[in-house]
Amino acid sequence: MKAVQVVGYGKNLEMAEVPAPEVTGPYDVIVRIGGAGVCRTDIHILEGQWAQKSEVTLPYTIGHENAGWIHAVGSAVTHVSEGDKVIVHPLITCGLCRACRAGDDVHCENNLFPGIDTAGGYAEFLKTSARSVVRIDDSLEPADVAALADAGLTAYHAAAKAARKLRPGDRCVVIGAGGLGHIGVQVLKALTAAEIVVVDRNPDAVALAVSIGADHGVVADGSQVERVRELSGGRGAEAVIDFVGEGGSTKDGVGMLRQAGDYHVVGYGENIDVPTIDIISAEINFIGNLVGSYNDLCELMVLAAQGRVRLHTVKYPLDRFQDALDDLGSGRIRGRAILTP
Amino acid sequence: MKAVQVVGYGKNLEMAEVPAPEVTGPYDVIVRIGGAGVCRTDIHILEGQWAQKSEVTLPYTIGHENAGWIHAVGSAVTHVSEGDKVIVHPLITCGLCRACRAGDDVHCENNLFPGIDTAGGYAEFLKTSARSVVRIDDSLEPADVAALADAGLTAYHAAAKAARKLRPGDRCVVIGAGGLGHIGVQVLKALTAAEIVVVDRNPDAVALAVSIGADHGVVADGSQVERVRELSGGRGAEAVIDFVGEGGSTKDGVGMLRQAGDYHVVGYGENIDVPTIDIISAEINFIGNLVGSYNDLCELMVLAAQGRVRLHTVKYPLDRFQDALDDLGSGRIRGRAILTP
Amino acid sequence: MKAVQVVGYGKNLEMAEVPAPEVTGPYDVIVRIGGAGVCRTDIHILEGQWAQKSEVTLPYTIGHENAGWIHAVGSAVTHVSEGDKVIVHPLITCGLCRACRAGDDVHCENNLFPGIDTAGGYAEFLKTSARSVVRIDDSLEPADVAALADAGLTAYHAAAKAARKLRPGDRCVVIGAGGLGHIGVQVLKALTAAEIVVVDRNPDAVALAVSIGADHGVVADGSQVERVRELSGGRGAEAVIDFVGEGGSTKDGVGMLRQAGDYHVVGYGENIDVPTIDIISAEINFIGNLVGSYNDLCELMVLAAQGRVRLHTVKYPLDRFQDALDDLGSGRIRGRAILTP
Amino acid sequence: MKAVQVVGYGKNLEMAEVPAPEVTGPYDVIVRIGGAGVCRTDIHILEGQWAQKSEVTLPYTIGHENAGWIHAVGSAVTHVSEGDKVIVHPLITCGLCRACRAGDDVHCENNLFPGIDTAGGYAEFLKTSARSVVRIDDSLEPADVAALADAGLTAYHAAAKAARKLRPGDRCVVIGAGGLGHIGVQVLKALTAAEIVVVDRNPDAVALAVSIGADHGVVADGSQVERVRELSGGRGAEAVIDFVGEGGSTKDGVGMLRQAGDYHVVGYGENIDVPTIDIISAEINFIGNLVGSYNDLCELMVLAAQGRVRLHTVKYPLDRFQDALDDLGSGRIRGRAILTP
Repeated sequence: MKAVQVVGYGKNLEMAEVPAPEVTGPYDVIVRIGGAGVCRTDIHILEGQWAQKSEVTLPYTIGHENAGWIHAVGSAVTHVSEGDKVIVHPLITCGLCRACRAGDDVHCENNLFPGIDTAGGYAEFLKTSARSVVRIDDSLEPADVAALADAGLTAYHAAAKAARKLRPGDRCVVIGAGGLGHIGVQVLKALTAAEIVVVDRNPDAVALAVSIGADHGVVADGSQVERVRELSGGRGAEAVIDFVGEGGSTKDGVGMLRQAGDYHVVGYGENIDVPTIDIISAEINFIGNLVGSYNDLCELMVLAAQGRVRLHTVKYPLDRFQDALDDLGSGRIRGRAILTP
Repeated sequence: MKAVQVVGYGKNLEMAEVPAPEVTGPYDVIVRIGGAGVCRTDIHILEGQWAQKSEVTLPYTIGHENAGWIHAVGSAVTHVSEGDKVIVHPLITCGLCRACRAGDDVHCENNLFPGIDTAGGYAEFLKTSARSVVRIDDSLEPADVAALADAGLTAYHAAAKAARKLRPGDRCVVIGAGGLGHIGVQVLKALTAAEIVVVDRNPDAVALAVSIGADHGVVADGSQVERVRELSGGRGAEAVIDFVGEGGSTKDGVGMLRQAGDYHVVGYGENIDVPTIDIISAEINFIGNLVGSYNDLCELMVLAAQGRVRLHTVKYPLDRFQDALDDLGSGRIRGRAILTP
Repeated sequence: MKAVQVVGYGKNLEMAEVPAPEVTGPYDVIVRIGGAGVCRTDIHILEGQWAQKSEVTLPYTIGHENAGWIHAVGSAVTHVSEGDKVIVHPLITCGLCRACRAGDDVHCENNLFPGIDTAGGYAEFLKTSARSVVRIDDSLEPADVAALADAGLTAYHAAAKAARKLRPGDRCVVIGAGGLGHIGVQVLKALTAAEIVVVDRNPDAVALAVSIGADHGVVADGSQVERVRELSGGRGAEAVIDFVGEGGSTKDGVGMLRQAGDYHVVGYGENIDVPTIDIISAEINFIGNLVGSYNDLCELMVLAAQGRVRLHTVKYPLDRFQDALDDLGSGRIRGRAILTP
Repeated sequence: MKAVQVVGYGKNLEMAEVPAPEVTGPYDVIVRIGGAGVCRTDIHILEGQWAQKSEVTLPYTIGHENAGWIHAVGSAVTHVSEGDKVIVHPLITCGLCRACRAGDDVHCENNLFPGIDTAGGYAEFLKTSARSVVRIDDSLEPADVAALADAGLTAYHAAAKAARKLRPGDRCVVIGAGGLGHIGVQVLKALTAAEIVVVDRNPDAVALAVSIGADHGVVADGSQVERVRELSGGRGAEAVIDFVGEGGSTKDGVGMLRQAGDYHVVGYGENIDVPTIDIISAEINFIGNLVGSYNDLCELMVLAAQGRVRLHTVKYPLDRFQDALDDLGSGRIRGRAILTP
């Protein structure tokens, strides 16, 4: 089958012809790809940022945001069958370690992460496991929801975690109105009555976020910390969700936070660098956020089927993978780029 | 009355004769001091570290760890009366703001902090409020428990917060086996079945911590991160409580933390300085900890009355305040120094 | 002033001329009544159902759902002043007991409940405390929100508690589409993405509930348990909120509940009478719900100011109190009856 | 192999020769039984109390509290191997339904319950699944811990759930000082600093409970409700765990409960029959408790290995199953009866 592969860090991806994956274990599942999201992490991978953490052997097939149709299943798989429309949870998990047994799939001690440390979905077929496929509603199409598999799931996970503590009258700041922020705003809107304040450098992105439900939009023009504090009674916001994590966003974000507030780290790039005296005197928390669990993905698919979470996508045939990456890298994508068969 | 005052940053404290405080409002309470704890924060105050945050006008009376006997009460105070033995919660809170109404005294929007931003307890009498006095068991003496009012309450607050998520089989690392760490170990012992690992540079302090209940002691000789990881199955600890916060403890502590673990910041001095990619890929949290609530202090006094939390104290008459500070500054205090009438 | 009083159980209320309340303590607040809700509990009081629990001495002024304007305040009250528009939390609480210090006003060990065990708001003026008045938004009028002070606050408390555990894809059944159920549906809509199923005997009430946001309406015609189970995948609902509590609603409600589900008891009249083997084998919970806390009332007022919670009211001048009670008793009120000055 | 079977309700169990179970699926595990607990539920099964709920076809092999050694494993099982010492979680769960994916094994939508609805462990071998075996510490023996698999796990689950809300100064009442209560007391002791009050009709059982850690013992001689209220400051206990559930224990237990308290239902027999007005006015909760999750069982095994949870057992060879049941039925067992190979 065709597959797009990382052949070296600092080099372009290359299309290759590789053997199609096959069922070898009782819980294996082969998915025919209907859509594979193109993510900023893919660019970070090519730059080598994940090389040490993933320890993957090159070449390998990239792509960690996948949806499609069940193509084949192992002998013990009974909950999905050939032809079912599914979205693919980004991790393959063991189901037996303590984290898995607590529903905390993301910290499975034996996980694989297709597209990061094993073959991913920029290809015709993907091998995953029975524990990683979520059936989607008839009204949804794989290419439309693929980007929810990782970017969306990460935004859902962070926003839902924040929402659990937010009450009417509280404020939640969303830093970054790109793909993840866009989903984050919709999820917050669905799960909490707190006021949502969106901050981004791009006035168009801010306007779009307001149009889909943010209560206030703030353009990051240097006055953003002051503006957010004004909008939150001078005291700052109960929660900040930072989908950017670079370019000074963390310093800004801490400045927007109320005493006892939660700072959700999602985007990455720079360091959290804060004096311990400020952390203890304001008693603030920094909360790490990776991708969500299998049940989180099911919940997100409920919101998608209800029409509460939508994402604008730009589709490219698999062969045009380089165009998709180039357009993402240069900021020409509105929403998310998706590779399709 | 006699009172020990800050007269300038970078200068020594001075004894002064000042008017004794009087009841002026319906909820005022005057406490005759039986013990006032001498705390490292007092040294930080003299160095000027808190000057900007507290905005206190000099000279003022220092001392934020107080216990004693009720001397006089305002017209509306009915739950304590003259002669009652009490420990004093370090904050004076309004009782009416949203934080107070949620039981979150520490984030009262209108709080005063005697000894930090208004007159404290290095004196014969202290003015506080009905909302700040906790009656103590007959078996306890003010001079013995005074240091629990702030140092102890901070340790209780952090340890109890950590304990809420710890389960049998989990590990909790306590960095720092000084006054706070000592109490932290005892509180963890009372509230959780998790294994407690104590880390300190001082072998004697480590040995003492083990003798009062820590399951493992690790001397910080350069191998401490590796040792803790060995003791926690190679994966790190579910929680780290850092009572030090300087001298590289935060870098060590993060290295000891398991995926999805909680890093409790208590001690302060250096910066938390961690790449966001490490925070999100391990999905760890940094949890700020200030002092505990009024109800936390009541709970700590229950543990003290049960004999589960004890603190070694070294007593100095109020006039010898400078000796107490000098002994603390040069590391000659085992446990906590207390000024007594 | 004029006041409507209980003069004997089984007798009608009577209008009386009584002394207007006065400020006597530092935290006293006198409210000029703008609206007093007429509640089914008032009928239960007259029937004597609360006589033993309240131990009130007759005659006394009834009315526990109050809103109006600040008329006078005690010497220590600083957060409200004469003329402020307020809604009145139904309890007067001490602020000093362990429950109050935890934000759990409802279980104050020293509470008074105006209208139940001391003089209430079917009158020109009401005496309450600084801890019981919530300033309301300029856009709201006392007579419009008075019924939210108790009925609304009870519905908010139960719905918000249920919402904390509900996730997208879950179902919440609301039994009873009267005044409380009406508010409950609006609160659930604001706080959760779970599907809301309303059950009532009255088809008009069901239709109205669906028009304000319930996802499904079920007329209780004998098939209601079966219908709800069909609507919840054959497995039952994750939560049931029973605003009725009589006429067999509890048996129905338990039949609608999923394994591990929560049954919220709000309405009262009959017994919860369930075999322990059913409770343990399905591992279900029965959750009691009284009125909400002060902070709950603040949050509800946020939702009211945002227009997310509205209540239809029928206003009667105070002199026509008997008409209001008669109309309520005979089911002629749509929404809630309010007595106005 | 030999197996003890239910041949009819109201009849005695009978020993039979049946085929030994074999591995047929990739996740199957065959355990050679080292100990099978004899439980009051076994007597209830013989009386027919579970016939309708379990829908099991007779004859079948009884026994739901099992421990032993791994005898054979399916092709996909890697975390245990032949000869490993294990305790067996009572349920076989699918690992794929929403409950399993949340760590809530007990509400698996596709579960089997060996000994209740399929072949159990009063036999030489038991067939279970990879998801149901917990390796135990070298220091523990299967016959000694078998009764922790269900009775112990149920007590752990309820006690740990209660402990999560208990704080120093709170009281927890344990009704019933038999097998479950005995474990419940030890678990509470390990997980909370709350005071433990044990209530039982049998003075010897009360004395034993006090000797292993209960703070107070109350003999149920008619004055028990009054005694418990005295021991809890006249206000009642924050939590009651009822391991009896018959003979009037629920009425007693509700009388011992504080406002806003939690009543944990564990033992079964009679009905919870409480007026809704009492539930709402005291705002109490009734919490159902079935057996614990897989992770709960791991945690309990940690406590057992630490020596914090011990259980007195009386061992009978498998052939003497009738003696064990007779001794249990007539109250002659101190601790738990265990069938051994």
